Amino acid sequence: MSNMMSPEDQLAELRRGTAEILLEADLLRKLKKGRPLRIKAGFDPTAPDLHLGHTVLINKMALFQRLGHEVIFLIGDFTGLIGDPTGRNATRPPLTPEDVKANAATYEAQIFKILDPARTRVDFNSRWMGAMTAAGLIQLAAKHTVARMLERDDFAKRYRGGQAIAIHEFLYPLVQGYDSVALEADVELGGTDQKFNLLVGRQLQEAYGQEPQVVLTMPLLEGLDGVNKMSKSLGNYIGITEAPDEMFGKLMSISDDLMWRYFDLLSFRPNAEIERLKQEVATGRNPRDVKFELGVEIVDRFHGAGLGARARDEFVARFSQGALPEDLAEVTLTAESGALGIAHVLKGAGLVPSTSEAFRQLKQGAVKVDGARVEDGALSFAAGSTHVFQVGKRRLARVTIS
Amino acid sequence: MSNMMSPEDQLAELRRGTAEILLEADLLRKLKKGRPLRIKAGFDPTAPDLHLGHTVLINKMALFQRLGHEVIFLIGDFTGLIGDPTGRNATRPPLTPEDVKANAATYEAQIFKILDPARTRVDFNSRWMGAMTAAGLIQLAAKHTVARMLERDDFAKRYRGGQAIAIHEFLYPLVQGYDSVALEADVELGGTDQKFNLLVGRQLQEAYGQEPQVVLTMPLLEGLDGVNKMSKSLGNYIGITEAPDEMFGKLMSISDDLMWRYFDLLSFRPNAEIERLKQEVATGRNPRDVKFELGVEIVDRFHGAGLGARARDEFVARFSQGALPEDLAEVTLTAESGALGIAHVLKGAGLVPSTSEAFRQLKQGAVKVDGARVEDGALSFAAGSTHVFQVGKRRLARVTIS
Repeated sequence: MSNMMSPEDQLAELRRGTAEILLEADLLRKLKKGRPLRIKAGFDPTAPDLHLGHTVLINKMALFQRLGHEVIFLIGDFTGLIGDPTGRNATRPPLTPEDVKANAATYEAQIFKILDPARTRVDFNSRWMGAMTAAGLIQLAAKHTVARMLERDDFAKRYRGGQAIAIHEFLYPLVQGYDSVALEADVELGGTDQKFNLLVGRQLQEAYGQEPQVVLTMPLLEGLDGVNKMSKSLGNYIGITEAPDEMFGKLMSISDDLMWRYFDLLSFRPNAEIERLKQEVATGRNPRDVKFELGVEIVDRFHGAGLGARARDEFVARFSQGALPEDLAEVTLTAESGALGIAHVLKGAGLVPSTSEAFRQLKQGAVKVDGARVEDGALSFAAGSTHVFQVGKRRLARVTIS
Repeated sequence: MSNMMSPEDQLAELRRGTAEILLEADLLRKLKKGRPLRIKAGFDPTAPDLHLGHTVLINKMALFQRLGHEVIFLIGDFTGLIGDPTGRNATRPPLTPEDVKANAATYEAQIFKILDPARTRVDFNSRWMGAMTAAGLIQLAAKHTVARMLERDDFAKRYRGGQAIAIHEFLYPLVQGYDSVALEADVELGGTDQKFNLLVGRQLQEAYGQEPQVVLTMPLLEGLDGVNKMSKSLGNYIGITEAPDEMFGKLMSISDDLMWRYFDLLSFRPNAEIERLKQEVATGRNPRDVKFELGVEIVDRFHGAGLGARARDEFVARFSQGALPEDLAEVTLTAESGALGIAHVLKGAGLVPSTSEAFRQLKQGAVKVDGARVEDGALSFAAGSTHVFQVGKRRLARVTIS
């Protein structure tokens, strides 16, 4: 891939895994301008701890970079510096400028595993919003209507349900939209849940006499369970700072269907290469081997070239021959209380006849989770998570807690 | 009346003509503090041309002054300096600071006919709003909810009717409310149509840890027709810069019922004195003579002591004896197109047999309107206005155009 790619081919790459492009014709026209486009994506100013779900967006930013465009990683610190203006949330005090700086550094340490630092502008919306007067904000607020704001799904639901919406909540989408005006963004990326706010930017740019940005929404990545969106609280995530073995093991636990989804959203391989892999599996190649390729690529990305292959080799070595993931029984267990203790998981998956036997096996060091030995009988697994459980050499199951 | 008056007696005077006091108990408690209260009333920063309707509020301010309190005449110039931020209203460009200063001077020339300059603070909300940042406005906006704002009658109506409400329109009541915070107002006065905004001030003061202001709403004064609110566009008004004869003549044209309303809202006489006048009329005094007293008081107020009596004498002299207003025929004519030409009025009122006769009488100088000779046959009278028309010495009628 290079910036010599035709606009049409660029569009085809950009389309991959994308939920929606508004409007495709506008994007094509912009790509034909022959100058690098300004690609904006906004991020929360609070301390980041990214997982693969977050990287879907960052990957698309990286693709834009590889296609020769300029990427703006915008930290929305302006609202963070205000804190919770309702004063109701004592656990969310305003950030200090020092906090913002420290969080930006943490972001950079993580995102530059994916983005090219030389082609990334990290910016802060306090730069222009901090200087804006109340009069300026009133003029901004005049450019949008109450009725349109109340069309946003969450606002509509809360309004109908009699839940309070504080008026400043109507101002935040306008601030986000104005960021696009200040940056003269050509394209803004965001999750599908951000679509409304991204469109406000499009509309505000028009109101300020600019060509409206193209909005490109990315789907929310499913977690390891293949059902719920990847999230820390559901426990179905892979953190980008997790150790190579953990990261690789977790990727091996996903279903084959989810693997193709991850290829689309997480791999940097061009479309054609992924098509080729699909063809190979369709004509008999073991999907496990393709999953290995995904695992190697992801581990290499976050830990350095070569570490992916090493994690793969260690993964293979940890499992006795003939008992590798593609043969695993698939089990789904229901956690009534939101989580299941390890002994109940082992029993529920049929790997042990009783929970007391489970504790005995744990004590003997015969239990592995995602290939790593586990001895703690108090361990529990949250609903939404998926792991490979193993007792002794032969008894294995991939268990999803629902 | 003096500042020696008891809190209870002050309250009784303040109640006169007042639409609503929220809450009376709060006002009484504040009056008992034994210090001058800060009384706020907000005014539009655009060029004022006051009529008696506007003075209802100013009269109440003057009453507070006579009771020993401090009055703040607040010119809401902050929003005027912004102009129409939707940019749709080309006829409402932003005011310049020079405009604001000039308009304030015009206000002062008019209001100091009623208010005591020594006890009046003329202030401008740009003093604090001009210095407010966007962040400050967001914090302010966090203190009110969308649902409560949509309860305001006009917003509710427009929202239901699918008419656009721009978001900045939700900010203006907050700005007005914040003015009360900045001024630490004890009482805010406004028209009944301002009640919602005045209550926002009350609520914001509480949110900012202040004792909430008392809200005192004044009714909208009926115009000369006794039906519609006094307004320039309806033509049923008495401007406070109108000449003594005009002003007196128009006051003489009102009905006896409306006269008592005007006493309540426009006279500075204490309650007891007005009660006495009512008693006198009930026991046979000619209401015309009481109306004379009202006219003299009002003309004196705006033109100086003695000019009221002179206007009265001239009014009496203009009408031939035995043909004074109390004997007038009362006629109501319907203006299909919103206004009626003078010839149609004279004919409709039965003062002339035809419009051509009307024009002849006009040319001869035999026609008077409110006692003043009129020769212009192109003159027309707007719906909502009431005047005394006279042809020759004997033919008179008080005509209301509806």
